[in-house]
Amino acid sequence: MSGLKFELKKKDPQSKARLGEITTGHGKIQTPIFMPVGTAGTVKSVHTREIKEDINAEIILGNTYHLYLRPKLEILEKAGGLHKFNGWDRPILTDSGGYQVFSLGDMRKITEEGVLFRSHIDGSKHLFTPENVMDTQRTIGADIIMAFDECTPYPCDYAYAKNSMERTHRWLQRCVDRFDSTDPKYGYHQSLFPIVQGSTFKDLRIKSAETIASFGREGNAIGGLSVGEPAEDMYEMTDLVTDILPEDKPRYLMGVGTPANILEGIALGVDMFDCVMPTRNARNGMLFTTQGVINIKNLKWADDFSPIDEELGGYVSTFYSKAYLRHLIHAKEILAAQIASIHNLTFYLWLVREARKHIEAGDFREWKDVMVKKLMTRL
Amino acid sequence: MSGLKFELKKKDPQSKARLGEITTGHGKIQTPIFMPVGTAGTVKSVHTREIKEDINAEIILGNTYHLYLRPKLEILEKAGGLHKFNGWDRPILTDSGGYQVFSLGDMRKITEEGVLFRSHIDGSKHLFTPENVMDTQRTIGADIIMAFDECTPYPCDYAYAKNSMERTHRWLQRCVDRFDSTDPKYGYHQSLFPIVQGSTFKDLRIKSAETIASFGREGNAIGGLSVGEPAEDMYEMTDLVTDILPEDKPRYLMGVGTPANILEGIALGVDMFDCVMPTRNARNGMLFTTQGVINIKNLKWADDFSPIDEELGGYVSTFYSKAYLRHLIHAKEILAAQIASIHNLTFYLWLVREARKHIEAGDFREWKDVMVKKLMTRL
Ligand SMILES: [Zn+2]
Ligand SMILES: [Zn+2]
Repeated sequence: MSGLKFELKKKDPQSKARLGEITTGHGKIQTPIFMPVGTAGTVKSVHTREIKEDINAEIILGNTYHLYLRPKLEILEKAGGLHKFNGWDRPILTDSGGYQVFSLGDMRKITEEGVLFRSHIDGSKHLFTPENVMDTQRTIGADIIMAFDECTPYPCDYAYAKNSMERTHRWLQRCVDRFDSTDPKYGYHQSLFPIVQGSTFKDLRIKSAETIASFGREGNAIGGLSVGEPAEDMYEMTDLVTDILPEDKPRYLMGVGTPANILEGIALGVDMFDCVMPTRNARNGMLFTTQGVINIKNLKWADDFSPIDEELGGYVSTFYSKAYLRHLIHAKEILAAQIASIHNLTFYLWLVREARKHIEAGDFREWKDVMVKKLMTRL
Repeated sequence: MSGLKFELKKKDPQSKARLGEITTGHGKIQTPIFMPVGTAGTVKSVHTREIKEDINAEIILGNTYHLYLRPKLEILEKAGGLHKFNGWDRPILTDSGGYQVFSLGDMRKITEEGVLFRSHIDGSKHLFTPENVMDTQRTIGADIIMAFDECTPYPCDYAYAKNSMERTHRWLQRCVDRFDSTDPKYGYHQSLFPIVQGSTFKDLRIKSAETIASFGREGNAIGGLSVGEPAEDMYEMTDLVTDILPEDKPRYLMGVGTPANILEGIALGVDMFDCVMPTRNARNGMLFTTQGVINIKNLKWADDFSPIDEELGGYVSTFYSKAYLRHLIHAKEILAAQIASIHNLTFYLWLVREARKHIEAGDFREWKDVMVKKLMTRL
């Protein structure tokens, strides 16, 4: 079982953007990459065949909290892991469940040991600790496993952010100890990525990035951003952190973001992104297109029989018209979510593929500045 | 513009089953055929590509009531008809909207003129008459258009059934007058099918079948069955009626039914069927398979990692496991409806294809008797 490999193929001369290739036990990933979110073992409303052949995703996410509660670990282990369970044979990354359990509010209690919480499904009590979360992700069988951390809310005061970050670092040591003393269950390598925290405080972010880098893991993540702070703060913190995280390891900016956020993140040296936005917004009728943003519910599309996005290409974006999709969403037809989700994800994967082309061609910076404006235009 | 053609290719020696081929302005249909229901211009949760390539449907239904209210006729006409609007380029049949408006209860009033009703969407008032329902279906652009009738509820007393049937016959004359004095809007032929009523009363069914046959239209339908009556009554009425309806025209048994109902209907000389059961039951986790009926929600499938239906073949039925589909339906994931709907519709189209093979081979009757038992077994 060989480890995760990251090949840094090219660096953009006018930004911190990089072109790379990650090799996992389930194949290669070209970076920068966007990872569709498959919460409960499914990218919502999209067939596995469509994720591969229409969207061209190279890696998807799973959510540990959701998978732990349903279908539960016993089923996933009997299936031979999540890849076997859902039929996705390319790489999978799982979050640690931390983000979900911290979001449970009243229904959770944080201690040094871990987080005690109640299931949102049936109210049953559970404890997540750094150790058992490693075991859980081993059982799910993700190729890339995330450390158990606290994603601090925004805004958050300095003392809270500092205490939380320090606990995240102590938890990381426990994650590493457990992870390194256990083996993969299904015959392929798994990697543990630690997570930089520190809210929007520069000194904390620097401290955290140095700590995380010192663990020397196979990849590193930046958490606690895209949680409500101004975009400039997100970019400033990312810029600080990518200066410290090692260049020869992939960098993952968690939960980010809009097309513009992703392009700016790439310019700041980030390699991996994930976000529920393309699928969640799709279900609400918000489309990201090569020409800008569309609210397909608006009356102006009622008799626009042109394809959703001719330039993007692909089955759903060229076969179905704006007027038809608008009709489906008003009629509350499931097919609306299906079409809009495939379209938005196809767009996100197109976006990172275009970014890679422009890093390769050496004109990423100019292209990015034009695209950021174009893509956020409301049509 | 050539008319609808029906070629009767073969008759089963041991039953009234027939093999045929209908030719429409949007291509050919092999009969007996099952027609998936595409209520609001979409077969729920199924992409157009999947209806064609996975399910292999040859014709789909649209519901006049739903399409009239949303997206409305103005949009459908601007689009150039429903085929252009939803991208389905094979034949479409539309119902008359009668079934839906009669089901509105308090929200509708029946007169000789037609049915006054309120929209279930916004409460607005509308009038459906035999004449305007012909115009509406002309505008939707279906290849096969249904007469405006009353589908009598079950049970229903003799006097009500008789009066209703007589009104349906008077309305049919008005439908025919209007239909024959108007032209198709989009350059291809449209056919009007009249509908036999008469509830479960033999003399009324005979009378109605004779009346309907006397109109000499391009095809004929049997309505008012599969509305709660015992299956034997359904078969008895169908048997009576198919003895009277002309042999050289396709016969359509509306709203039927279970796999067993369809096989018995074929044995009684029916050529066309439609039903919401495969898609509606799919959304509730009920699967029709080549081995029998499955309630995928049951615990027994939780760790059954075998394909949904290996023998049926096709992408969803062989790619996804029972355990995975069970997980998705419990997690209320949209993908559950997508998988189960494609599976059930693939099964229904497989069923009629198998029936055709056995009529062709001359052993339909024996095959049917075995299959009716097998297909209704609960696994
Ligand atoms: Zn996000
Ligand atoms: Zn039915």
